[in-house]
Amino acid sequence: MPQKPNYEVHADRTVTFTLRAPDAATVKVSGDFVQGAQDLKKGDDGVWTFTTAPLNPAVYSYTFAVDGVRLTDPSNPMIKSGDRSSESMFEVHPDSAAPYDVQPVPHGTVHVNWYQSKSLGVVRSIYVYTPPGYEESKSKYPVLYLLHGSGDTEAGWVTIGRANFILDNLIAAGKAKPMLIVMPYGRPLADVSLVVSPPQAQTDPAAFQNDVLQDVIPYVEKLYHVSAKADDRAIAGLSMGGGQALQIGLSHLDTFHAIGAFSAASRGQAEEQYKDFFADPAADNKKLKLFYIACGKTDSLFPAAQNLHEALDKHQIHHTFAPSEEGHVWRNWRNYLADMAPQLFR
Amino acid sequence: MPQKPNYEVHADRTVTFTLRAPDAATVKVSGDFVQGAQDLKKGDDGVWTFTTAPLNPAVYSYTFAVDGVRLTDPSNPMIKSGDRSSESMFEVHPDSAAPYDVQPVPHGTVHVNWYQSKSLGVVRSIYVYTPPGYEESKSKYPVLYLLHGSGDTEAGWVTIGRANFILDNLIAAGKAKPMLIVMPYGRPLADVSLVVSPPQAQTDPAAFQNDVLQDVIPYVEKLYHVSAKADDRAIAGLSMGGGQALQIGLSHLDTFHAIGAFSAASRGQAEEQYKDFFADPAADNKKLKLFYIACGKTDSLFPAAQNLHEALDKHQIHHTFAPSEEGHVWRNWRNYLADMAPQLFR
Repeated sequence: MPQKPNYEVHADRTVTFTLRAPDAATVKVSGDFVQGAQDLKKGDDGVWTFTTAPLNPAVYSYTFAVDGVRLTDPSNPMIKSGDRSSESMFEVHPDSAAPYDVQPVPHGTVHVNWYQSKSLGVVRSIYVYTPPGYEESKSKYPVLYLLHGSGDTEAGWVTIGRANFILDNLIAAGKAKPMLIVMPYGRPLADVSLVVSPPQAQTDPAAFQNDVLQDVIPYVEKLYHVSAKADDRAIAGLSMGGGQALQIGLSHLDTFHAIGAFSAASRGQAEEQYKDFFADPAADNKKLKLFYIACGKTDSLFPAAQNLHEALDKHQIHHTFAPSEEGHVWRNWRNYLADMAPQLFR
Repeated sequence: MPQKPNYEVHADRTVTFTLRAPDAATVKVSGDFVQGAQDLKKGDDGVWTFTTAPLNPAVYSYTFAVDGVRLTDPSNPMIKSGDRSSESMFEVHPDSAAPYDVQPVPHGTVHVNWYQSKSLGVVRSIYVYTPPGYEESKSKYPVLYLLHGSGDTEAGWVTIGRANFILDNLIAAGKAKPMLIVMPYGRPLADVSLVVSPPQAQTDPAAFQNDVLQDVIPYVEKLYHVSAKADDRAIAGLSMGGGQALQIGLSHLDTFHAIGAFSAASRGQAEEQYKDFFADPAADNKKLKLFYIACGKTDSLFPAAQNLHEALDKHQIHHTFAPSEEGHVWRNWRNYLADMAPQLFR
């Protein structure tokens, strides 16, 4: 039998963390539900506890630290495995189903593919979501290339991002077009699930872009029945992946006609950074069907998002700017995807 | 950049584990490479270390314990996530590629499907391996239903079992027929990757069998282009899953014409336990194309495997009995799959 995880969500939406550690001197918990590490208090039975304030409904992540050593919850199977570290997850449920919840609708499939990246010289995996009905259909579907943030892997948009359930729900409600979502690993390295020796740094700044353009896209367009028109290709990402989506997308408007930048790691002045793109606004507007920019107002990356938005306004380049509450957290990114996906491929 | 995990495999195949824990009083490591928990020794820099004896090439799992609290390696992304606990993994490479290694051959796809189990009343996921070429083909493939052991999930045969790479390699070498492998979750409960509240025990002993026969098989045969002939269906499993494969398979010879029991959790006298099956050996021999039984000689389940083998001999029921070295460990189960798969669907 599965064990009970070391947290409990109460009816008032407070959450109690517990950890049995009779021999530990300190136990802490941290995560995206609270600022900073919180001390658990030791009970006479050797079980440590901490209870949060009431939390807004969302999926959250957390880790414990026992005498200074970080660990995931030893008995919670909901793990988000990153390329540097892992975190456990819990969900505070809303009264009705959330956009990222498993609802009683048809479910798509998540595929894990392994491909030989010629540009990187290594085997890598990609996660590919196909919508319900894909298997029986012969349609050529549009594709969203969706990039993760620093510390995550190609699995992140599924395990903690729930991109597949978000799309299942939007498609069932008739709000989004059925589409594929292709999620590559954002570091230009061998796949971390198969790591054999410590990864070698890749110093070519175009290495990931080459992998996407020369390896991932041709692989996907060969294996899956998808459209190869730029109108039917979008690229989006969060944080590091948002910066990559801007970098790759804005310089390849013949490949992608839609771009999404979620809390994008893009610093400096947009007009300088994307000089070629800003050189011909009329051409940009002709090609770009959707340019979606979102960022939390308390995110340290917000000024860069605002700067990009203002530069686009100045040059009269069509775009959507969606500032949100909160900061650099996953609950924003799920919402951004749920907000952007219905606007794609229209 | 991904971090270096907390182990290092040396040229002599010894492995050193290290963990930075200046404030800990004890640090231990355990796993399937050693008997019992091993003490790490603290260095002046607060880094604890332990070095193993030389290990045979294999994929191994391990966890640390810091002041009595169990944890996976905080900086190793190779995690095997179970339904009770998780373990980190490392590989000691052989001189040439192992049967479970990623080799330069065409790779199949691992699909994650979500289905509504009517018999269990919950949403569950299954992992499905399709062989290279499946997407472009219209053939009706044979299917191996492959069950995991206690503590694992539907992901286990992929993450630590490497069933997909084992089949990729066998198929590329012309040794196994291209086939699908379907991997359900062996507990009759909601999917642990989506756990919302502590799981409720299912007391109906036929609950998992009902899910396999009434939900999983119809779902798979609708979604995938596979054969629905009993000659093209096999059921196999390890440990708990081996017991389930025997229980389900031997009582449904009109559904499955091949059965694999790997270190099967099946206790008691085989002739009593599978009374109906032993009642008509001639009929059994007519239906069963392959009955594969394997177990490690030092496994506590070995006597049961031997008892089954002897009962089959006594009743002259065709089968393969493959006793191996070692005990109840994953390296045996990878080998058993690599040994059995070439014999399937002939």
